[in-house]
Amino acid sequence: MKLVRYGEKGQEKPGLIDAQGRIRDLSAHVGDIAGATLDPAALAELSSLDIPSLPLVAEGTRLGPCVAGTGKFVCIGLNFSDHAAESGMEVPPEPVVFMKATSAIAGPNDDVPIPRGSDKTDWEVELAIVIGKTAKYVSEAEALDYVAGYCVCHDVSERGFQLERFGQWTKGKSCDGFGPIGPWLATRDEVPDPQNLAMWLKVNGETLQNGSTKTMVFGAAYLVSYLSQFMSLHPGDIISTGTPPGVGLGFKPPRYLKAGDVVELGIEMLGSQKQTFVPDL
Amino acid sequence: MKLVRYGEKGQEKPGLIDAQGRIRDLSAHVGDIAGATLDPAALAELSSLDIPSLPLVAEGTRLGPCVAGTGKFVCIGLNFSDHAAESGMEVPPEPVVFMKATSAIAGPNDDVPIPRGSDKTDWEVELAIVIGKTAKYVSEAEALDYVAGYCVCHDVSERGFQLERFGQWTKGKSCDGFGPIGPWLATRDEVPDPQNLAMWLKVNGETLQNGSTKTMVFGAAYLVSYLSQFMSLHPGDIISTGTPPGVGLGFKPPRYLKAGDVVELGIEMLGSQKQTFVPDL
Repeated sequence: MKLVRYGEKGQEKPGLIDAQGRIRDLSAHVGDIAGATLDPAALAELSSLDIPSLPLVAEGTRLGPCVAGTGKFVCIGLNFSDHAAESGMEVPPEPVVFMKATSAIAGPNDDVPIPRGSDKTDWEVELAIVIGKTAKYVSEAEALDYVAGYCVCHDVSERGFQLERFGQWTKGKSCDGFGPIGPWLATRDEVPDPQNLAMWLKVNGETLQNGSTKTMVFGAAYLVSYLSQFMSLHPGDIISTGTPPGVGLGFKPPRYLKAGDVVELGIEMLGSQKQTFVPDL
Repeated sequence: MKLVRYGEKGQEKPGLIDAQGRIRDLSAHVGDIAGATLDPAALAELSSLDIPSLPLVAEGTRLGPCVAGTGKFVCIGLNFSDHAAESGMEVPPEPVVFMKATSAIAGPNDDVPIPRGSDKTDWEVELAIVIGKTAKYVSEAEALDYVAGYCVCHDVSERGFQLERFGQWTKGKSCDGFGPIGPWLATRDEVPDPQNLAMWLKVNGETLQNGSTKTMVFGAAYLVSYLSQFMSLHPGDIISTGTPPGVGLGFKPPRYLKAGDVVELGIEMLGSQKQTFVPDL
């Protein structure tokens, strides 16, 4: 299934994308795409629904973030060896873990405000893992049993805030709107191999990232297992797994986003996002 | 008011501490110590309640975290110059910001599990600010208008996970139970000067931290304003403001916690916590 949340900001309803790409309403069956609904067993049950009998939602309806109730928005840094190189950093022997604020989460096509004082707002297409069941001290072999599915995440980053304002990366990763999620949550059964997905990103129509999850240093199962050694992962938690080369920071000279720029990004099987960057008034 | 949440884990009810130090039930008046209840205007209204008429709660009832609905658990690093020195780090020109996982939040007297593989679990008494009203781009002069109140936070830290496992500090800060909060949320009117509060911490009865919020590099109002330049702060968000000297990492040789150790910590006007450290089986 391709699960979505649609409607006005803060009032999204659950839905799914049918075979024709239309949104159908799931409100009669689940409260939200969150919490216990994400349990792989609950998702399996939901998949027996007769999709053509579900109410159609009006075309052009806004999509919200495809998951709600996210307690943690965990990110992995430098997880593609060639992206590490373009950032002037080394691939670490263990995953680099940081957090984005959950208040940064946005719909896949929402405008993204460029924060006041920013002149280094940058792009990063990433594969996100959505947790479906509480995971603690799980092995790599069993890790994917705890995963509800996958989605596209745009890990928008302000490089000045991240790297030049002293200390940890959080400041450059957590601005409002810096975490578009979706368009849909592809349940795990839709993605037979999360380590073989093409991923791309365009700025104003120009392709700048063009990679594959094949070249991730630490794969999805490893990351879920690894993180679960440090903290319990809960349903709705998001793990964004790092970006391939081609970010603005890696250009010589660097290239950053300005108001009016349009970014499109996508991952094979997971759909695409399109955002206009706007001033934060 | 001294607001609390009491009862079994995950089923806490709202309450307050009366003049005799007893818990009284607030369930008839507010849903939880969370969200809109934390708005300074709502708190002012609540303060007109006739406290002696509220139902008494049985003595010995567990206290939970004094705030619920926390979307972000933001922490400030190296915010006391003498603590920075003992950590072998310099005081930065701007606040160092990182995040603890909200899943680390615990009651003030709950046992704290020492994570598997840990041999460097350390203590940090901290003043926490609880946000009461959404704050974005607020000035230092108006910052405290957005604060619901203050509480004690124990920023439990695993120094190996934090400093020796590559990259950002989150891994050593986010383990389950590493964020005891409370005993109570002191509303802002109870704390006339957040920059003049004695703070202390004992391990097995021995005083190891003995400081004051007077020596914080960046004070509460500055921190709320500063963070609001990078991200919206929402009701229930917690900002833990850094620790004075005396942590285990600062001893030569370092001293760390082992199963069976008892840590007590407190801040003037904000009460005290007491935790037993236990193995995480």
